[in-house]
Amino acid sequence: MGGGTGTFTVLSGLKRYPLDLSAVVAMADDGGSTGVLRDELGVLPPGDVRQCLVALSSSDKLMRDLINYRFANGHFQGHSFGNLLLSALEKVTGSFDQAVEKASDILRIHGKVIPATLDKVRLVADLKDRKIVGEGNISQSDLNGLRKIYLSPKAKANKKAIEAINSADAIIIGPGNFYSSLIPNMLVSGIPQAIKKSKAAKIYICNLMTKSGQTSDFTVKIFSEKIEKYLGCKLNYVIFNTKIPDSGLLKKYSLEGEKITIVDKELDGKKFIGADLISRKLPDLSKQDLLKRTLIRHNPDKLAKIILKLI
Amino acid sequence: MGGGTGTFTVLSGLKRYPLDLSAVVAMADDGGSTGVLRDELGVLPPGDVRQCLVALSSSDKLMRDLINYRFANGHFQGHSFGNLLLSALEKVTGSFDQAVEKASDILRIHGKVIPATLDKVRLVADLKDRKIVGEGNISQSDLNGLRKIYLSPKAKANKKAIEAINSADAIIIGPGNFYSSLIPNMLVSGIPQAIKKSKAAKIYICNLMTKSGQTSDFTVKIFSEKIEKYLGCKLNYVIFNTKIPDSGLLKKYSLEGEKITIVDKELDGKKFIGADLISRKLPDLSKQDLLKRTLIRHNPDKLAKIILKLI
Repeated sequence: MGGGTGTFTVLSGLKRYPLDLSAVVAMADDGGSTGVLRDELGVLPPGDVRQCLVALSSSDKLMRDLINYRFANGHFQGHSFGNLLLSALEKVTGSFDQAVEKASDILRIHGKVIPATLDKVRLVADLKDRKIVGEGNISQSDLNGLRKIYLSPKAKANKKAIEAINSADAIIIGPGNFYSSLIPNMLVSGIPQAIKKSKAAKIYICNLMTKSGQTSDFTVKIFSEKIEKYLGCKLNYVIFNTKIPDSGLLKKYSLEGEKITIVDKELDGKKFIGADLISRKLPDLSKQDLLKRTLIRHNPDKLAKIILKLI
Repeated sequence: MGGGTGTFTVLSGLKRYPLDLSAVVAMADDGGSTGVLRDELGVLPPGDVRQCLVALSSSDKLMRDLINYRFANGHFQGHSFGNLLLSALEKVTGSFDQAVEKASDILRIHGKVIPATLDKVRLVADLKDRKIVGEGNISQSDLNGLRKIYLSPKAKANKKAIEAINSADAIIIGPGNFYSSLIPNMLVSGIPQAIKKSKAAKIYICNLMTKSGQTSDFTVKIFSEKIEKYLGCKLNYVIFNTKIPDSGLLKKYSLEGEKITIVDKELDGKKFIGADLISRKLPDLSKQDLLKRTLIRHNPDKLAKIILKLI
């Protein structure tokens, strides 16, 4: 459960094992190519779904490169082909749900990619002195004084997402941008309730880095407690990183106020599982997806191995 | 051999039979969505190739609808998804030839779609008093006083097109817009030479209607003689229509100066094969493709049956 690059990483790691994977994807994205498509075509946000489809695809590299390809010029500049595929399929089939199913066929994916909701929503952050509307705006704002974050209008869960949660042996949350990729899933009516009711192992993968003005000074414990608050129930496991990344990269991050997630001194060793989770190489994403995002990243194989031991 | 809706019709009819089909497609198109993609992305023209791919596709209807889907709003307005697919594939693979091959896989086509040339060319019409550059402009112009029509720069044939001609049992030319879809194939160096050398049955399917300022007053015989002039050799068969279409449609056409192709009084019955070729229903094309084009059309089944008797 998530959206964006963190979910891509987890799925890429897990898909090598004989597991029945379902990715439940946040649907509040409205930045970049996705935002333009939403505004101009009135479609649901394709960007995060696209990344999950590519992660689970068993198609050849050319096909995955095609889906991630971004046009470099003209009217189409910056739009990824996969986003256009999902949007065109939504128009032809008349529903985003069917669009995702057809794209799953075309990309021969192992498992399922499931939009958390099929309602058209915007993320809203209610601060002491103002409201910020839109995931794109929120992800670039200082959320100090955040009173409430919610979806507008209220969204109800996609039936398929609830079914996936109900039949899950393990529910894996994150990693991912806290307020943009993870929390929007938990704001969908029905999703946290289903997770709470589930007897599955609830596993949270903590972010490697904090985000200035949003999760500044979050420790591993604070991250997990915040997730538990939005879920309304306890997590069974929290997987976190113990390895300090390359100092050059850390310096680059600190320029934007982003720091490594601090590991609290006293953590319950049965629930909190620490390991070197850092990747030494860049994931198989398009350049533009990479540039937009972080360079300190989880290693898919390391994550997958730890998860497999827990389930 | 052709390009555009006429070729779509012939392929749609022939694909129901156990034939090894290769469509050799003109590459001078530069109007509409195709023109914008050429200008902005520097790609080869995808439009006619797309139509042939759809004609030969064994994918489900949804997939064919997707390829023909045209965006209705925003940055993408008027662009067909299939054109974007071919252009993105050209960028990712680095060649239009490979793009067509991959798209052929995706659409599970029976047979081959082969660009006549892989050179980037424009069609040029040299009239007494001026030059018209670009297929899009030429197709809308009065070509009275035409001295020469040629490709600029000179284009050499795609090796695969020559192979297809060399191994053909029958070479079927047309129907199609005379100067926009048919002649551009014959202006590619190597193509008319290969056709001339071939022992295959050379079959020309004559247009139902003439085009004002371009083929006005062409009779069946004139059409076929003009084709023979560009080919540099004789045709074995000319298939033409003998049925007068609906008078309401004819009236509509006459407003744009387009008239039914007149059948000459004396025609060699062995070479010239006349029949009712008119379609009673519209072909399986997107609305926009239809609106742009003619409503008096060849019937794919009738054409296919006549062709099969000749080969």
